[in-house]
Order: sequence, then structure tokens, then C-alpha cells
Amino acid sequence: MKKNLFYAQSGGVTAVINATAGAVITEAKKFPKQINKVYAGRNGILGALNEELIDTSKESKAFIESLQFRPGGVFGSCRYKLKSIEENLGEYQRLIEVFKAHDIGYFLYNGGNDSADTAFKVSQISQKMDYPLTCIAIPKTVDNDLAVTDSCPGFGSVAKYVATSVQEASLDVQSMRESSTKVFIMEVMGRHAGWIAASGALARQNKNDAPHIILLPELMFDQKKFLDTVKHTVAKLGFCVVVASEGIRNKKGKFIAESDTRDAFGHAQLGGVAPFLANLVSSKLNLKNHWAVADYLQRSARHLASDTDLQHAQAVGKFAVRYAMQGMNGVMPVIKRLQDNPYRWSIASAPLSKIANVEKKLPKSFISKDGFNITSKGMTYLRPLIRGEAKCVYVNGLPKLLEPKLVLAKKQLT
Amino acid sequence: MKKNLFYAQSGGVTAVINATAGAVITEAKKFPKQINKVYAGRNGILGALNEELIDTSKESKAFIESLQFRPGGVFGSCRYKLKSIEENLGEYQRLIEVFKAHDIGYFLYNGGNDSADTAFKVSQISQKMDYPLTCIAIPKTVDNDLAVTDSCPGFGSVAKYVATSVQEASLDVQSMRESSTKVFIMEVMGRHAGWIAASGALARQNKNDAPHIILLPELMFDQKKFLDTVKHTVAKLGFCVVVASEGIRNKKGKFIAESDTRDAFGHAQLGGVAPFLANLVSSKLNLKNHWAVADYLQRSARHLASDTDLQHAQAVGKFAVRYAMQGMNGVMPVIKRLQDNPYRWSIASAPLSKIANVEKKLPKSFISKDGFNITSKGMTYLRPLIRGEAKCVYVNGLPKLLEPKLVLAKKQLT
Repeated sequence: MKKNLFYAQSGGVTAVINATAGAVITEAKKFPKQINKVYAGRNGILGALNEELIDTSKESKAFIESLQFRPGGVFGSCRYKLKSIEENLGEYQRLIEVFKAHDIGYFLYNGGNDSADTAFKVSQISQKMDYPLTCIAIPKTVDNDLAVTDSCPGFGSVAKYVATSVQEASLDVQSMRESSTKVFIMEVMGRHAGWIAASGALARQNKNDAPHIILLPELMFDQKKFLDTVKHTVAKLGFCVVVASEGIRNKKGKFIAESDTRDAFGHAQLGGVAPFLANLVSSKLNLKNHWAVADYLQRSARHLASDTDLQHAQAVGKFAVRYAMQGMNGVMPVIKRLQDNPYRWSIASAPLSKIANVEKKLPKSFISKDGFNITSKGMTYLRPLIRGEAKCVYVNGLPKLLEPKLVLAKKQLT
Repeated sequence: MKKNLFYAQSGGVTAVINATAGAVITEAKKFPKQINKVYAGRNGILGALNEELIDTSKESKAFIESLQFRPGGVFGSCRYKLKSIEENLGEYQRLIEVFKAHDIGYFLYNGGNDSADTAFKVSQISQKMDYPLTCIAIPKTVDNDLAVTDSCPGFGSVAKYVATSVQEASLDVQSMRESSTKVFIMEVMGRHAGWIAASGALARQNKNDAPHIILLPELMFDQKKFLDTVKHTVAKLGFCVVVASEGIRNKKGKFIAESDTRDAFGHAQLGGVAPFLANLVSSKLNLKNHWAVADYLQRSARHLASDTDLQHAQAVGKFAVRYAMQGMNGVMPVIKRLQDNPYRWSIASAPLSKIANVEKKLPKSFISKDGFNITSKGMTYLRPLIRGEAKCVYVNGLPKLLEPKLVLAKKQLT
């Protein structure tokens, strides 16, 4: 019996999450006997709760193909975590009600571990409510912190952006070290797991290359050791490049970026980790410095996306549809690494119960003894993920964008 | 009579200044009867003063060719402005002495208006000291603030980086606006002239596209008008993207980034313009926001260089050598715009006296009435400069770098 498919994006978007959406829509067309329409949630799961379902069949073929080139989440995403079934049964009932009204038989939820949890819960409650629904979670997170999967779509592209930016900015700083900036600090995302910060290490090709210090959220920030290492590096090489995770914490476990610290002038300082560290370097070492905070630039840099990452993102979308067609329920297509070099991978299915709400941090074996660097084991893991330059189409010097129609399905409920 | 050529990079480096260096070295080889060796100053003009001359003939052909792909200044640059001849004649005498010791007949100085001034002074003093020296300045500055030339090599690539980054990050913010970030602020370079901030406008393709507000250093920062516009834009579109020059000032003429402002908690705030504005938006409008400071990333992003810019950078290098061969002295090869669309340009020579120490700000006719936007006249100027994607070579997912030898010429002086 033909059913409609509901796809939603969840949480922070990435450079390649739309590629996953494109793969879902394209793959669904291959099963015309089972799948009628593909609806996308307007602003993610909120679209289901508000009965705002974007009818993707109204989009042109060219637009669907162009999704692979478009960063951000074209149907809208959201930060909205459904409460537990005990706490808010009504919300789950509403979801099922909307799905029922629009004849949804397949629910594909594209996000991180929260979304895996939601998809898991919805699959359970739909059984209890006797509404047959196939629930598949599709991995996506720049943080690379999902369990079971070898890596997460979205991460490889951020890693490539960070490594390239560190390489480029370091060449700049190195040029100017004699009479200008000695220390450059780049703040990157990854509040709880240091995968993105670690990827900065990929910029290093020779021993003394930047980055010289990587600050990971997995370790306590040791101010003295940090300053000593900056000082030593500048003395030795004339400059020092630091990659810092936004999530580094002091010994009380408080985020550095939120800590109330006074600078040399007795002023309290708020804001990011990079300006905090820059201020330390200025006031304690009196070294000229610059800092950058890439923020959303890093996770939306489709122009520099990793082709490996793009392929992962498309494959998990495709397999999510296939798994649904095979009647699998409560699973996620995950990336399985078969070989490091040359890199080989495949897609496998994993039960959502193993993924929901689990956070995968950087393993200890990936972190060097001094805590400021990545081991060769870690580098072996990271290297293949940034390989390949995903094709990008430009018009008039800018990435080309096609405009979506975003037509909503007619509301059935009041 | 064969003479050596001395080339030096000056001031902040760019994504394409090495392309100029490569063009100088390559063009010089075409005049074997006039030019013997091309020396590059180690760390710019400091290399001349310290008698540290890099012998570029020791570099491989492949390395010289690869200069077009390498950001930063490979021979080193510096922030060092020679004083006036009256104040420090000794320094100019030292320069001439080093040039004499190494048989330098041509001095090519690659920088901004300070460097044009230095090249001009050196050309004058060499005549007075009866040491024949041909002095040519070569334009370079991401700030695009040189007089006479239509645009400055280095600017087009920053403009392309800023426009692309604004486009990409805006798609991200737009996706999340329903439940997350409403306001995104990107701080860009350009302390005194708003060319780089203005280039953010290139990201806009349709009327309501980002960026919604551009803050230029040419205009006083009006906090109330800014906040009103942010509020209005969020009410209308659900989100607001701001591009802010690092050089915006308050009504006292003080840089915002250096101003001593208190946040909602009474804490003084230091640091960049973006965190300052973000704090305003949080405390006055209570809107969730994110901010980015691209800093050196923007001027070293060779991976996203404008091909137009790269061609400009190579052409000015080539013509600098040709002008020197033609016996021209105290001039700069400048870019002349022949036509906007399709863009056509050529190289012309301009006397350094017209360029030295002049700063070209964004003309009033390029700024919209409300001060937050760029006029169509401004857009017509900017558009061609970001066109074309300069080729980039990758290896293992990262821009490929060849290592220079950087062999110094034997010192002749003590």
C-alpha cells in the first residue's frame, strides 16, 4: 500500500545536510509502488507538530539536484527536543495524528543523537498507538559525536574547512612574524567533543608546521602550561598558532568562554574562547596576537566541502529510504570503515537504542601525552574524511543557488 | 649592463601576493641581457636593511610556478615604514649601500600606499646619492584603498571570500531562525575604508537576502538606528545578517572595538566589533545571536581566490618588470577599468607621487541613503572583481604546498 514519507532536519545544519535530503527525495522516486509523496517538515519536527508539510514534489528536478550544492537546511531545521513520553504524551499523539492525517507511513529524521532518540521514541509510540510507522534516523552532525557510526556526515567538511583555514592563516602569520603578529588563535566549534579542534592537526605537514597547540574540550584548560608552550613556541619558531575548541573548561569545569575573568586592566571579559586566550597572551606574555572565530562559516562552507563527506551524506540518505522499504524500523544507516588507506567504507544499519543520547568523545588514544596534539592513530582516522573536493557550481563568482518553492500541503487538521 | 633586481613584500599579505612575486620572477627571466638575479627581501624591506637577500634562482621552476597557489608572503613581509629622509637619512643610505654591494639596479616594492611612498623616496634619494636605481611600486592591499588604480590586487579575493561566506552562513541562520539564532554578525577587515564590508553586499541576489545591514567605517555608528533596523528586520524576515567593518567608530570618533562599554551585567567589554554588536543585540533586543570574526582567514583564503584578482596580481608583477626594463622610474602599474560588463581591463603606469600616502575610501555614491547598504553604482563596481574561481591544487584534501629553499645571498657588508 502506498504511503507518504516524512523527512525532517534537526538541530544545527551542515554543509551537506541538503545533500542527504536530495538523496532521500531521489531515492524515494525509485519506489513508486511504496512511496507516494515525500514531505519535508517546515523547520524540522516543528513542521509535523504545526502541520506544515512541504510538498517536495512541487520542486523542479533541477532544484532537487542542486540540493547537493546548497549549505544550510533548505526546509528549515530546529532546536526542539521532544520531552519523554511520560512528560508529554500529547506531543507524540499530535505527531501521530498529523502523520495519520497525511497518510505518512515513513518517518526519516535527519539529525544527531537527540534526533535518534526522538525517532526511537516515535517508533515505539506508533506501535503502542497501533499506527504502523517506519522510523529511520539519518546521521548528521558537524560535532562527529554519534556512537556506532565511524564518522558523521557534516564533520568531514568542517574538518576540511578548519584544516585548510589553519594552513592558510598560518602561512599569513608566518610571513609577518618578524615585525607583527606572533600568535594566532582560531576558535572552532565542538562544545563537548574535540573532533573539530583535532581536525586542525591535518594542516600540519612538517614537524614545525602550524598548528602548534590544539585545545580540546576533553581536557581541563591548564593556563600555565598553555602560556609556557606559547612562549616556548614563539621563542623557537617566531610564531605560534593555536586551535581552540569553544568548549574548553577551567578546573572548576566551567566553560572558559563563560568565565568571569579580568584582563590586565581589571576589566571583566565576556565572549568567545579566542578573545579570552588572546587577552591572556597579550597580558601575560605581551605578544602581539590575532584571533578568529569562524562560527557558522565553518559548518556552512559548502564551497570547501569534502567529497568524502558529501558521498557519506548522500549514501545515508539513500540507505535510509532503502531500509524503510525493507521494513526495517528504529534503525540508522551508519558509516562503516573498511580500510584506512586507501579509504574504503560501506553503509550498515544500527539499532537506534545504541545511538540515542550517547555522545562519542575523542578517544584518549587520539590525544598526545602533552594534551596539545593528535596522535598518529588519530591522524590516520581523520585523514580520509577531508579527501576530495566536492564539486561546486559558481555563477558571477558566487556559489549558484536555485530558489525553492516550498509549497505547503493543505492542512487536514484544525 | 646587467643588474640584479630586488623585490620585497610589504605590510599585510594577501591570498595573491605570491602570485605577483611569481610573475616578477618569471617575467625577469625574459630579460637576460638586463637582469641577472632576482633577490627577494627576507621579511620585506627588513631584508634589505639587514642584508638578508633571498636568491630566488635557487628555487625550483616548479616552486616558482606554485607561488600562484600559495597564500601569505613566502619571503616574509613586514610592518616597517621608513621614516622621512630628514628624520633618518642613515636608513636610506644603508639601503643604497646594500643595493650597491649586491649590484641591485631595480627595486620593486610590493605593498600599499606606505610602500609607494617608500619606493618614491628611494627613487629620489638614489638620484641624489648618484646611485642609479629604478624604483617601481607594485600594488597590493586587501583594503582596496590605493589611489589611481581601479582596484587593488588582494581585494577581489577577500571580497569573494566575504560574499561567499555571508551567503553560506546566511543560509545556515535562515534555516535555524524559527527556534534558534535570529541575528548573525560577521566582522570583516578594513579599518579605515569600507571596501571589504561593502563586498558582503555581493551575497544578496534577491531583495530580502542577507546581508541586511552593512556597517561601514566611513559613517559614524548610530546605535539606535542599528538596533531599530535589526529589530525591524527580524520582525519582517525572522532573521537578520550584519556585516561589520572592524573600523566602525562611535560619535566621538573612537573605534567601537576599543571603546569601554558595559554589557547588561555591568561588565566592561573588550575585543572585536562583532562581540560588541552581539552583546548589544542580546542586552537591548534580547535576540539570540551568533558572531564570526574571520580575521586572517579572509585575506589568506587562496582556496577561494577570485580569478580576476589573481590575473590582476600577476599582471602588475609582469608590468612592473617591463616598466623597469623600459627605464621608467617612480611609477606603479595600476589597473585600469575599460568596461564594467563584460569586464575589461588593462594595465597603465601611474606616478608614485599621486599614490603615496593617499587613502581611497568608499565614495559616497556607493553608499545607500540609510547608510546600511551599497548602491547599484557600487555593486556595478564590485561585481567583476570576484568573478572566476582561481585554480587550486589539492593533495590529500588540502591545498598543495611546495617548500621553498630560501637561500640567502652571501653577505658583502659587515
